[in-house]
Amino acid sequence: MKQEQCIFCKIIAGEIPSHTLYEDENYKIILDVGPATKGHALIMPKSHYADFYELPEEAAADVIKLAKKMMIHMTDKLKCDGFNLVQNNGEAAGQTVNHFHMHLIPRYKNDGEILKYIAGEPDREELERIKRTITE
Amino acid sequence: MKQEQCIFCKIIAGEIPSHTLYEDENYKIILDVGPATKGHALIMPKSHYADFYELPEEAAADVIKLAKKMMIHMTDKLKCDGFNLVQNNGEAAGQTVNHFHMHLIPRYKNDGEILKYIAGEPDREELERIKRTITE
Repeated sequence: MKQEQCIFCKIIAGEIPSHTLYEDENYKIILDVGPATKGHALIMPKSHYADFYELPEEAAADVIKLAKKMMIHMTDKLKCDGFNLVQNNGEAAGQTVNHFHMHLIPRYKNDGEILKYIAGEPDREELERIKRTITE
Repeated sequence: MKQEQCIFCKIIAGEIPSHTLYEDENYKIILDVGPATKGHALIMPKSHYADFYELPEEAAADVIKLAKKMMIHMTDKLKCDGFNLVQNNGEAAGQTVNHFHMHLIPRYKNDGEILKYIAGEPDREELERIKRTITE
């Protein structure tokens, strides 16, 4: 289940050091070494799955439940004001390590912009066209 | 379970129109009317929970499984190159509607920056201090 060249597999195997917040038989949570904010963490399965497309459904359910527990715990310990969960798939989406992981990002008042985009203003017809593309 | 002033509760009740991609007894997926990219959608439980702190664990598991199915389906239909899942909690984290929802954001090559932050460069001691704050 380990991929030889994967940096997260190496962290999981203990070949590369990390700052571990939580670990059990199947999952690991570590601090991101290039954090967006204080306490920015990554939750990952120990088995190698490239992304959310590959991650089995039951593992996804485990990850989100664990994310919730850790978010509550970190909010208490860090006294943060909010929280982002972010999960990127593919280079176009900003995924930099091809081992499924979810970002847990504590947020603090006025800590800057992290999730920023210019909201489109499609009209109702355009939205209906997109809806049809997806649903038909 | 409906909160009178909640815009998403009103959408779910059919009092405000939306562009629905999927709906079942407990969940609804709609197009975001101010999309980051073409196909940007929101998945939400029909019951009112303010955020991920309030969302029951089993509902979270349902949401992530449904998100995976919809991501695969949308990737096929939209021919996008990647996908972000984003879930914001609290005003400090950019949450604008206080009814739990997860963003499903299809990504296309060179569609611009959506998730952007300046990565901190804490040294090992600083990371260990943060780890102790969280784990001790």
